[in-house]
Amino acid sequence: MTYREDIEGLDSSILMHSRVWEASGHVENFTDPMIDCKQCKVRFRLDTLTEMISAKNKEKYLKEFDASADIKEISLEEKFNEILEDQNRSEKFLSIINCPQCGNKGTFTQPRKFNLMFKTFLGPVEDSTNIIYLRPETAQGIFVNFLNVANSSRQKVPFGIAQIGKAFRNEINTKNFLFRTREFEQMEMQFFCKPGTDNQFYEEWKERRMEWFKTLGMTPAKLRFHDHPKEKLAHYAKNATDIEYEFPFGWGEIEGIHNRTDFDLSRHQQFSGKSQLYFDDESKEKYIPFIIETSAGASRSFMAFLIDSYYEEDVNGELRSVLRFNPKLAPIKAAILPLVNKDGMPEIARKIETELRPFLRIFYDDKGAIGRRYRRMDEAGTPFSVTVDTQTTLDDTVTVRERDSMEQVRVKTDQLLNFLLNKLR
Amino acid sequence: MTYREDIEGLDSSILMHSRVWEASGHVENFTDPMIDCKQCKVRFRLDTLTEMISAKNKEKYLKEFDASADIKEISLEEKFNEILEDQNRSEKFLSIINCPQCGNKGTFTQPRKFNLMFKTFLGPVEDSTNIIYLRPETAQGIFVNFLNVANSSRQKVPFGIAQIGKAFRNEINTKNFLFRTREFEQMEMQFFCKPGTDNQFYEEWKERRMEWFKTLGMTPAKLRFHDHPKEKLAHYAKNATDIEYEFPFGWGEIEGIHNRTDFDLSRHQQFSGKSQLYFDDESKEKYIPFIIETSAGASRSFMAFLIDSYYEEDVNGELRSVLRFNPKLAPIKAAILPLVNKDGMPEIARKIETELRPFLRIFYDDKGAIGRRYRRMDEAGTPFSVTVDTQTTLDDTVTVRERDSMEQVRVKTDQLLNFLLNKLR
Repeated sequence: MTYREDIEGLDSSILMHSRVWEASGHVENFTDPMIDCKQCKVRFRLDTLTEMISAKNKEKYLKEFDASADIKEISLEEKFNEILEDQNRSEKFLSIINCPQCGNKGTFTQPRKFNLMFKTFLGPVEDSTNIIYLRPETAQGIFVNFLNVANSSRQKVPFGIAQIGKAFRNEINTKNFLFRTREFEQMEMQFFCKPGTDNQFYEEWKERRMEWFKTLGMTPAKLRFHDHPKEKLAHYAKNATDIEYEFPFGWGEIEGIHNRTDFDLSRHQQFSGKSQLYFDDESKEKYIPFIIETSAGASRSFMAFLIDSYYEEDVNGELRSVLRFNPKLAPIKAAILPLVNKDGMPEIARKIETELRPFLRIFYDDKGAIGRRYRRMDEAGTPFSVTVDTQTTLDDTVTVRERDSMEQVRVKTDQLLNFLLNKLR
Repeated sequence: MTYREDIEGLDSSILMHSRVWEASGHVENFTDPMIDCKQCKVRFRLDTLTEMISAKNKEKYLKEFDASADIKEISLEEKFNEILEDQNRSEKFLSIINCPQCGNKGTFTQPRKFNLMFKTFLGPVEDSTNIIYLRPETAQGIFVNFLNVANSSRQKVPFGIAQIGKAFRNEINTKNFLFRTREFEQMEMQFFCKPGTDNQFYEEWKERRMEWFKTLGMTPAKLRFHDHPKEKLAHYAKNATDIEYEFPFGWGEIEGIHNRTDFDLSRHQQFSGKSQLYFDDESKEKYIPFIIETSAGASRSFMAFLIDSYYEEDVNGELRSVLRFNPKLAPIKAAILPLVNKDGMPEIARKIETELRPFLRIFYDDKGAIGRRYRRMDEAGTPFSVTVDTQTTLDDTVTVRERDSMEQVRVKTDQLLNFLLNKLR
C-alpha cells in the first residue's frame, strides 16, 4: 500500500444548485426512457417492459410488426429494444403490444425522458427557480471545488482529489441487493493533469485501480476490464473502462476509469463565469487541466468483497462458514476469548482487551464452547482469535489462532500488540 | 480518552419513508410559522419579520395595536413576537403592519406552518403516496435500527449506537456561517437503558460530554450547560440540557443531551406494527428501553473548535497567527522541512516523510525561509514541525519544534515516529 502526498480529501455538499447539473449535462442527459399505460396508469421503464414480456410473446410481436423479420432466439431481446429505442418505429411498435399490467393493447404513451436526479426545493417556495438536486455523483462536487482545493492545499498539477460519500439516483427499478439502490456510497478520485499527459495517467490509474482490488484479496479470475468502444463513449469521455466483478448474477461494474478531458472544468467555467484556468509554475503556461477519474461504487465493492470472501468448507466432518476477508477489510481485527472463568483468566483477558482496544477493533467473547466462539469469528471474518488459558497464568503467553489456516501459535502477552499490528499492516 | 466496547457504529440511510417521520412527530411538529405578503408575494418567517422592522416602527405598531401598552425598549422584540405568536391577536396585529418588502399595509396572510423537512419523490410518479423526506436528524435512523444492531452485535442493554452523518433542514433563513445551514453534519450517540436507570445515565452522559469538549482543549469558561425548564421540554423529553459555547456572536448550542424516555421506540412500535420489546437476559424481563441521547452538531463543534483555537500574538515584534488545536484535532500532524537543498538533506527529509506518512498526516514543505514555513504551519495548526539541517547529516538527529511554545528539541531520526506518536496520543 503506498501513501501518497499528491491526493487530497474532500467532503462536498449533497444538495447542489441546479446550475451545476446543467453544466455537467445531468439536467439534459441523465434520463431513462419511460412510458405510461393510459388505461391502468402504471409506469414502465422501456427496458423493464422488455423484461416483462415473455420470449414467446416477443416473437409474436416482432412477427406482427415486421412479417419478414429474421428472429433468432439470441437476438430477440436486442431486436426488441432496438425498435423501441428508435423514435421512428417505436410508436407503431408500442401500439401492438399488450400492457403487461392490465393486458390492454395500444394503451401506451410515447416514450418520454425521466430524469434520475432527486429534486427538492430550497427554502419555503416551491417553484422552478428554487429547484435543487441531490447529487447523482460525488464527482461534480470535486470539479467545482478544484481551484479551492488547489489553492488551500498548495498542490501542483498533477494531483488528485478524493471523496467518499453518498450519491442518489431515482432509479425506476432497483435490483440485485446493493448493486442498484437509490441511495448509495461512492468513492471517487479525480486526478488533474496537464493536457497531453492524460493518456499516460489514464493507463497508470487503470492498472493501479485493478491492482487495488487484487491487493485487497479479490479473486483475479473474477475481475476484468470492460473497455468502452469509441462509438459508445459518454459525451465527456475520450477513453473509458469499467472494472467488472463476476457476481453470482453476472458480471457487473464496480469501478469506472475515465479520461474526462477538460470537458468538466470547461463547462463549469462556461456556466459559472468563473475562470477555471490553472497557472503552471513550471512551464509558465495557463491551461484547463484534463481529468482522469477513478469512480468506484463503495456499496457495490463492499458487496463484491463480501461475496468473494465467503467460503463453506468441511472441517472434520462439520461445515465451516468463513469470510476470508483481507485483514485490512475485516470489521473486527481480533477476538479475545478467555477459555474458562477461573484462575484470574477473565481479568487477564480484560487487561489484554483494554490494551489492544485503542489500536484495533476488538470483540470480547466469553460465552459458550471455544469451538463455537471460533466459528462465530470465522463467520464475521475476524482474522485473529486470542485465547487466554491456564498456560497464560503460568508463562504469560496466549494462543493466537489464524482464521484461514486455523493454525495456532503462542505469543508472549507483552508482544501481542506488535504481533497483531505486524500481521495487519 | 476511554475506548468503550458498549458503543456500536451505524450508517443509516438519508432518504427515509414518510411513515418514520410521522412516528417521530416531524411531519406534524417540525415546522416554523410563515406568512406571505399577498401584494408582493414575498414569504417571511414570523421571527424574521420581527428582525426586519426597526425598533421605532415596532413601537409605533405596538402603540397603534394597544394604546395602553407599556413598552420598554428591552422587551420590544419579545412583546412583538408574543402578539404575533398568539393566534387570537396575530390577525389584527398583522393587519396594521407594513410589508418590509413592498411597504403595503394589511397584505399579510395568516401565519401558516412550514415543515422544515426537505421532501422529494421516490420513483417516477410525483404523488403524495411517493413522498419521502431527507432526514432532519440522524437519530431516527438509529432508533429504527435498534433491534437490528442489538441482535447482530450481540450487545446487551445498556449499550449505545453512534452515528456521524449528514442531516438536512430546509431553514427559511440560514445564519452565522456554519451555525445554521440547510445541510449539516451531526454526531449522535443514542444510549439504550433499562427504565429506572435513565436518570443516572442522563447525568453520567451530561458530565462525560462536557468533559469531552474540555479534554479536546475547548476553553472551560466558554462552555456552559443550559438546562431546559420542565415547561419548555420537547414532546419526547423528560430531561434536556444543551452544551453551549460562547461564539463571537453569542452563546449557541453545540450539543443536546436528552432523556427521550421510551417515546421513540414506543412510537416506532405503534406506527410500524413491529414489536420493539427487548428481552433482558439478566432480569428475565421484557421492556422498551429508555434512550439517553447525546446529539452534537459536528459542523457547529468544528466551528467552535476553530474559533477557540485561534490566537494572534506578538513574537519579537511580529504578529503570529496560530491555531492552537489539540494535536488530536489538527488536520496535519507534522511538517517535514528540509532546511536547505544540499548535502543530501532533501533525500533525508523525503525518507523521513515516507516513514511517517503511513501513520500520520504529513505536510512536506521546502519552499521559502524556515521562519515563513513555521508560520504557515502555525496558521494551519500543525503541532510539530520537523527540520532537517546540516547537523542531521552528521549525527542523525532532527529538530522538532512545538507549535505553541515554539520550543525546539533534537530527536534521533530513528526515534522520531515514536516521539511524535507519544506526543499525539
